[in-house]
Amino acid sequence: MTQRTAAPFYLDCDTGIDDALALAYLLASPRAELVGIGTVSGNISAAGGARNTLDLLSLAGHPDIPVAVGAHDPQVGTFHGGAPHVHGDNGIGGVDLPTSDREPIEATAAELLVQLAHQHAGELRVVAIGPLTNIAEALRLEPKLPELVAEITIMGGAAMAPGNITPVAEANIANDPEAAAEVLAASWNVTLVPLDVTMTNVFEESHRQELLASEHPVSQALGEMLGYYFGFYIDIFGRACSAMHDPLAAAIAVRGVELAVAPTVRVAVDTTNGPSRGQTVCDLRGLYAGFPAQSGARCQVVLELGEDFAPHLLGTMQAAWLSEEQVAAPVA
Amino acid sequence: MTQRTAAPFYLDCDTGIDDALALAYLLASPRAELVGIGTVSGNISAAGGARNTLDLLSLAGHPDIPVAVGAHDPQVGTFHGGAPHVHGDNGIGGVDLPTSDREPIEATAAELLVQLAHQHAGELRVVAIGPLTNIAEALRLEPKLPELVAEITIMGGAAMAPGNITPVAEANIANDPEAAAEVLAASWNVTLVPLDVTMTNVFEESHRQELLASEHPVSQALGEMLGYYFGFYIDIFGRACSAMHDPLAAAIAVRGVELAVAPTVRVAVDTTNGPSRGQTVCDLRGLYAGFPAQSGARCQVVLELGEDFAPHLLGTMQAAWLSEEQVAAPVA
Repeated sequence: MTQRTAAPFYLDCDTGIDDALALAYLLASPRAELVGIGTVSGNISAAGGARNTLDLLSLAGHPDIPVAVGAHDPQVGTFHGGAPHVHGDNGIGGVDLPTSDREPIEATAAELLVQLAHQHAGELRVVAIGPLTNIAEALRLEPKLPELVAEITIMGGAAMAPGNITPVAEANIANDPEAAAEVLAASWNVTLVPLDVTMTNVFEESHRQELLASEHPVSQALGEMLGYYFGFYIDIFGRACSAMHDPLAAAIAVRGVELAVAPTVRVAVDTTNGPSRGQTVCDLRGLYAGFPAQSGARCQVVLELGEDFAPHLLGTMQAAWLSEEQVAAPVA
Repeated sequence: MTQRTAAPFYLDCDTGIDDALALAYLLASPRAELVGIGTVSGNISAAGGARNTLDLLSLAGHPDIPVAVGAHDPQVGTFHGGAPHVHGDNGIGGVDLPTSDREPIEATAAELLVQLAHQHAGELRVVAIGPLTNIAEALRLEPKLPELVAEITIMGGAAMAPGNITPVAEANIANDPEAAAEVLAASWNVTLVPLDVTMTNVFEESHRQELLASEHPVSQALGEMLGYYFGFYIDIFGRACSAMHDPLAAAIAVRGVELAVAPTVRVAVDTTNGPSRGQTVCDLRGLYAGFPAQSGARCQVVLELGEDFAPHLLGTMQAAWLSEEQVAAPVA
């Protein structure tokens, strides 16, 4: 492992099939050292996501990374129960991972994030791939968080692309718009990875077969999970494949993939109760002139990659796992 | 003129440089017989738009088409004063047309529309290229309007493209969101021509030169107006050219141009006071599967043309005016 050049990362997730891929990617990437993980209700409950995360970490041979359970409910209302039609009842497509003997730490996800931000002041990278409830809570716990954290990358929103929960809202943002509004209004540099780029960089059946053919139990488990995920996406894409929401955000956070179109613009979140609730209102009016600089803009919105993502994702995992034998217990 | 095959059209407009082009197109098209025009405040006041419309009609040799002044103020709030930076103080780029001796009729635009809808029951086509205040008023005056009118084509909204007044709202809809919501909720078939297609089918300087080179005074006046319009658009496109919002809606209404992507979907209008106010919330989630049929959908949203628009626009005007000598008084 090239730990010396790796930056410290905190991952906030709702594990989730594509969260599992993002987690695997961050474990495999030589550019990231995962120093803590928080969970939040989204694809599954915060507690359920923590269980999946702990089991995946043990399977990947990284049982010592602390996992903290975060917010069960969004700021307004209550947790809707997850997305079993997308991620399965257990959040990972019904795949039965060996149960890790590890448990979540006592601290909440927000507390863990604040602690890590102090411990790695100016260095910590945050990758948030679930609803932003924990991040907003951490901002309230520690108002200096934006100064302590080096940067934050968020999978969420839909800039010009259609939404996936409503015509204009994406699930992570729509599940807690008030938290998202708080996080995007804070004084840090945010990279937003919206549906515009995650829906146009898909994982095909041939990619899934490569995972299944791997010797590594994590690759095999991910390949099985994706079988379930592909089933949901058949109606969306008209064929068996899937979006790569969360791993793409992770790869962008570690500068693993080249960006082709990613303007820095003003972004607001719609927190009304109207038809646009949960929308990320990105000011992309500069589109036709190549996005000239915009005053007050602080959010980089990734609209297009400069390279194919799936080969990078597969290559990163294969390089790490086939060469380093970080293999833990085989799948039961 | 091939009046026998022409359908009766009512035009609701806020004339406006691109409204002037739409008006000229409808006068020139052998598929349209313009039977009445109403004006509404938008690019300029309803009264100012009526003056421009009357002057253009006289210049084009059609002084007998009735013009009715419609709503000065939107349903909520008051008229904002127009867009002189886009359309000039007089709404037509400062071009000084000969003043027609005609005046608007006594009826309001909404009254004229209702009257024409009865007169041409089942046949009348409505083209609305300004805020939808008059159309909403007509729906209240005559609740059977959707049954009386054959179809309505609206220039307005932004489906996936950025807005032009806010990051997500287009001017016609944003100038009276409540009216737009009423019109789009009524039980008629609507064709929506949003910024997605009007901003990607532009008029270039070479096209403008063709207008200026024409012998016809209307063509020359339009070419001069476009000089002003191009000046506004330099910041938007990075070069001298312009969108063709209103004439494109007119051409789509007369089936003059081929549509390549135009799904029929559910559309709502955001009437909140949040950051998405005035947005046309189009349900385009079927994008990735080629837009399968959608229950409850009644609005055809034009996203892409199947041909270049500018040659069709120029060709239609040239064919009508050069061959038919419909010339009235020359420009003073």
